Amino acid sequence: MTTRSSTHIGSRDKPLLKALDGEIVSPPPIWLMRQAGRYLPEYREVRKAAGDFLALCHTPDLAAEATLQPVRRFGLDAAIVFSDILVVPHALGQGIRFEEGKGPILDAIRAREQLKSLDKAGLDERLSSVYAALARVSLALPDAVSLIGFAGAPWTVATYMVEGGSSRDFAVAKGWAFSDERGFGELIDILVDAIAEHLAAQVDAGADVLQIFDTWAGVLPRAQFIRWCVGPVEEIVSRVRRRHPGIPIIGFPRGAGVGYEIYARATGVDAVGIDSSVPLYWAASDLQSVCAVQGNLDPVSLLVGGDAMVAHAREIVSVLGKGPFVFNLGHGVLKTTPPDNVAALVATVRAL
Amino acid sequence: MTTRSSTHIGSRDKPLLKALDGEIVSPPPIWLMRQAGRYLPEYREVRKAAGDFLALCHTPDLAAEATLQPVRRFGLDAAIVFSDILVVPHALGQGIRFEEGKGPILDAIRAREQLKSLDKAGLDERLSSVYAALARVSLALPDAVSLIGFAGAPWTVATYMVEGGSSRDFAVAKGWAFSDERGFGELIDILVDAIAEHLAAQVDAGADVLQIFDTWAGVLPRAQFIRWCVGPVEEIVSRVRRRHPGIPIIGFPRGAGVGYEIYARATGVDAVGIDSSVPLYWAASDLQSVCAVQGNLDPVSLLVGGDAMVAHAREIVSVLGKGPFVFNLGHGVLKTTPPDNVAALVATVRAL
Repeated sequence: MTTRSSTHIGSRDKPLLKALDGEIVSPPPIWLMRQAGRYLPEYREVRKAAGDFLALCHTPDLAAEATLQPVRRFGLDAAIVFSDILVVPHALGQGIRFEEGKGPILDAIRAREQLKSLDKAGLDERLSSVYAALARVSLALPDAVSLIGFAGAPWTVATYMVEGGSSRDFAVAKGWAFSDERGFGELIDILVDAIAEHLAAQVDAGADVLQIFDTWAGVLPRAQFIRWCVGPVEEIVSRVRRRHPGIPIIGFPRGAGVGYEIYARATGVDAVGIDSSVPLYWAASDLQSVCAVQGNLDPVSLLVGGDAMVAHAREIVSVLGKGPFVFNLGHGVLKTTPPDNVAALVATVRAL
Repeated sequence: MTTRSSTHIGSRDKPLLKALDGEIVSPPPIWLMRQAGRYLPEYREVRKAAGDFLALCHTPDLAAEATLQPVRRFGLDAAIVFSDILVVPHALGQGIRFEEGKGPILDAIRAREQLKSLDKAGLDERLSSVYAALARVSLALPDAVSLIGFAGAPWTVATYMVEGGSSRDFAVAKGWAFSDERGFGELIDILVDAIAEHLAAQVDAGADVLQIFDTWAGVLPRAQFIRWCVGPVEEIVSRVRRRHPGIPIIGFPRGAGVGYEIYARATGVDAVGIDSSVPLYWAASDLQSVCAVQGNLDPVSLLVGGDAMVAHAREIVSVLGKGPFVFNLGHGVLKTTPPDNVAALVATVRAL
């Protein structure tokens, strides 16, 4: 047991915290990325009540309800606060809207001069609804269930801010990063500040685990991956730990391939989330020797369900369950996933 | 020197063939994926003359002209026949159209029963224009310049056939592959036949190198990657080699991450193309010990150009140039790339 555990009263009763502390937990704890969402009929009701997506994120009662729904329905080992990685640029004052079926649209920031328009002062107040939601969920959760706060990593959040939305080739964001390290670095520095602050505040509000989503970590060449993903996340981890020594942090550099290893070694995270393409035996030998591993059932396998899903889930647990491990998907739940498949998956993992 | 080289008269004078034969060539041979295309004004003229994209692929004079343009302009070490990975399903009788700015749209095949509609008999005739283009280019190329024929790999081609176009999550193709290995396997078998045939016929027509593009190899879990990418490509390589012993074959399982290693070892390819995210030192130690490596400048770096591009290109050559190596991008040339940047890149690599 590390000193970390002793700072968290009751943590020894939570399977997720045990696994993140390096213990082999059997059956492994299970939660699912995007476990709250459109595939659940009860979520669609809450969403309708809220009006639009950002309103849902910023209405604590409704966000708390969306957070709790999958835990209630499936008995998962963790709740993850219902929010979005883009609440941070929104709180920094960047214009953003979500259009149905289109993804987010942002007023793109493409030059160093525009960075002045970002307002760091009001961050805490503008994100207060996230903290209020966490506080509500924290009171409502069963003792054994962990509460996860999260943020997007600087690189991933920056891609949306610079591209003005999602992208196929990230030409604008990468182009800026490649040709003007200093200017792009200023944007990343602003995000390191804001994200470290936001994560630490989520712990204040009741989160007992944090996850950093670097969804687009896989699109950068190695040197740029180190510069824009590994370095900034390391800085965030160290700042958050200064405020909250021992808070467990999961990093998810999706698609990092061979780069997962240096990410696991260099950032200081307690666990790496691995996408579905990462080979299990490699993860067991090269990653679990460094930290806990979380993943990596293909979301399409969950969507399809049946015998194939059961076989895939068993294989994952048989290889990764021998070390510190958290069962999860390799990416978020797809919106056409039958809820019954999630119930069947939880039953499968718990029966192992 | 392997027995292979001796079957190709004159191959010793072609830098690309030397590198693929395991020689260290200095400066390394250079060509670029999607080197013929919309970023070139002379291409846009040819495209206009052809009418639509498929018409261009199937008009040998125009396809040959598009193939030769970048070689003429930049003095590259290889021409790659102007064609598309979707000419194979088109030749199998699947309905397909290309809409400007939208990507390909196919009449999706989603069940085993529909596979009967695919007509393997007319393949050679329906692809004859590709062979005619190759024959024309072959006559026109300088002696030192290699001519590359290509095809999509079965998994990647199947994703388009099943999804009906490109996809974000590949839920339909993966869903079929995960839940009905037998049915999906029939589609893959049809594609192994057709693609092996198409590649061998391109050698008959004058290609002296082949490349197999597995653009979506990176979206599969390990076991499925072995089953649907590595296995079928191994079978294709072995069939093509039976017809053309020693023909050099480059495999490009884009995004395979850690999986590049088993792909390099198991498929029998002479070189693996690596995407821009693959770490150079890892590629040098874990891949170049097995076969030649081709790659991997970020296409955005080429788009941006300038000092950053020169530095990136130098770093790649400094690490990978110590083994058998072909300079290329990690993915295709982006359509807004200034042609002058390509000229500068070629000059940079040649000066090393």
